[in-house]
Amino acid sequence: MPEKTIEVKRDIRAERRAAAERFRRQLESRGTCIVRLLSSPGAGKTTLLEKTAQRLNHHYSLAVLVGDVETDRDARRLAPFAPTKQITTGGACHLELPLVQRALPDLGERAFDFLFIEDVGNLICPASHDLGEHLRVIVLSTTEGDDKPGKYPKAFRTSQAVVLSKLDLLPHVPFSVAAARQDALSVQPNLKILPVSALTGEGLDDWCAYLEAKRREIAEPVDLAAEVEQIR
Amino acid sequence: MPEKTIEVKRDIRAERRAAAERFRRQLESRGTCIVRLLSSPGAGKTTLLEKTAQRLNHHYSLAVLVGDVETDRDARRLAPFAPTKQITTGGACHLELPLVQRALPDLGERAFDFLFIEDVGNLICPASHDLGEHLRVIVLSTTEGDDKPGKYPKAFRTSQAVVLSKLDLLPHVPFSVAAARQDALSVQPNLKILPVSALTGEGLDDWCAYLEAKRREIAEPVDLAAEVEQIR
Repeated sequence: MPEKTIEVKRDIRAERRAAAERFRRQLESRGTCIVRLLSSPGAGKTTLLEKTAQRLNHHYSLAVLVGDVETDRDARRLAPFAPTKQITTGGACHLELPLVQRALPDLGERAFDFLFIEDVGNLICPASHDLGEHLRVIVLSTTEGDDKPGKYPKAFRTSQAVVLSKLDLLPHVPFSVAAARQDALSVQPNLKILPVSALTGEGLDDWCAYLEAKRREIAEPVDLAAEVEQIR
Repeated sequence: MPEKTIEVKRDIRAERRAAAERFRRQLESRGTCIVRLLSSPGAGKTTLLEKTAQRLNHHYSLAVLVGDVETDRDARRLAPFAPTKQITTGGACHLELPLVQRALPDLGERAFDFLFIEDVGNLICPASHDLGEHLRVIVLSTTEGDDKPGKYPKAFRTSQAVVLSKLDLLPHVPFSVAAARQDALSVQPNLKILPVSALTGEGLDDWCAYLEAKRREIAEPVDLAAEVEQIR
């Protein structure tokens, strides 16, 4: 069969990047910091969000969009702690921006300080899609092994932080925090590494402080000229 | 922009199914049973194969093809126990048949009793691709949570068996074997459920016996007519 070239007149990827950028700016202008969590299935994204919501709830308004191939199990777990909407992809292996934009009104009219997006459990495909997040965080559990960053590099290369979850299981699993850190930093030297046990609470203070600092960067962009003026 | 329909004259999916079926029959005729493992990243596929190879090695010839997005870490782990070839996808989230067929000659001329294929760590995308395997097995670790079958149904629907791995961690994680079993069977009632700890060896005898029985089904297809004849 002869090969045939089909000319596509639109750069779909550039359009998608621009749409994500518009969404990011739109929510930023309402004071919302979008935090997106990526991980393998069962790394602890939902449990981390349960605990995070219970802490941030006291000082911030927050909401959650949670993606899964099927079922609304995660939304039912998170609903007690924050307005939550389940996005069911019906087979697709990652969330895309139109799904997020369509689900957003279901969270209500109000602007939130934090919008958490929990993507479908998959350490590969979601990394290729920008959902307009300000902060992309990988949750890597100690039970998965410390060799994962190099084996799944794109997710680590495109993220700003790694939560090393299930720290409480360290005595029972062959996992070296130092090795995981080194492997992650060899993929992306600027990654913030945050070891956490959602079960015992270890590391949750640092994680929440990190989120608060990131939100301040979004909500109150540093105006250097004004600061210099003030000092004078 | 006006919509445009591009007519595709080939049914690519049917072609792929036929190619997988040919590959399956081809290896079957050489006495090879192809066992493919699917799982999330870090569920324990490689460790299970290390232990399986060490047991089956005594009575069978075996070989391993192992898929990853990047690195040859898994092949280096498995090479001491069986001829092993790493397939690196360079970004792709699953293996496809042409990759398997291209890698096969690197395992040598000899026909193997078992060819194990460890797919890329991903509980979604690999389930949509037939690599010509006789047996598709999901490895679900106790650390991932007992709610995963319903959330990632296609992998469970298209498999014949589930290895519940990391059984030794049961005292430390919120996982019910009964709940996982029930959830998996509600997706696919004929699934064989095999709880295993590769670390302590628990369940490995049952797992290996299951593999041996499956191979016998492939290598010595039951000829009912001949059996009836014999009884007469």
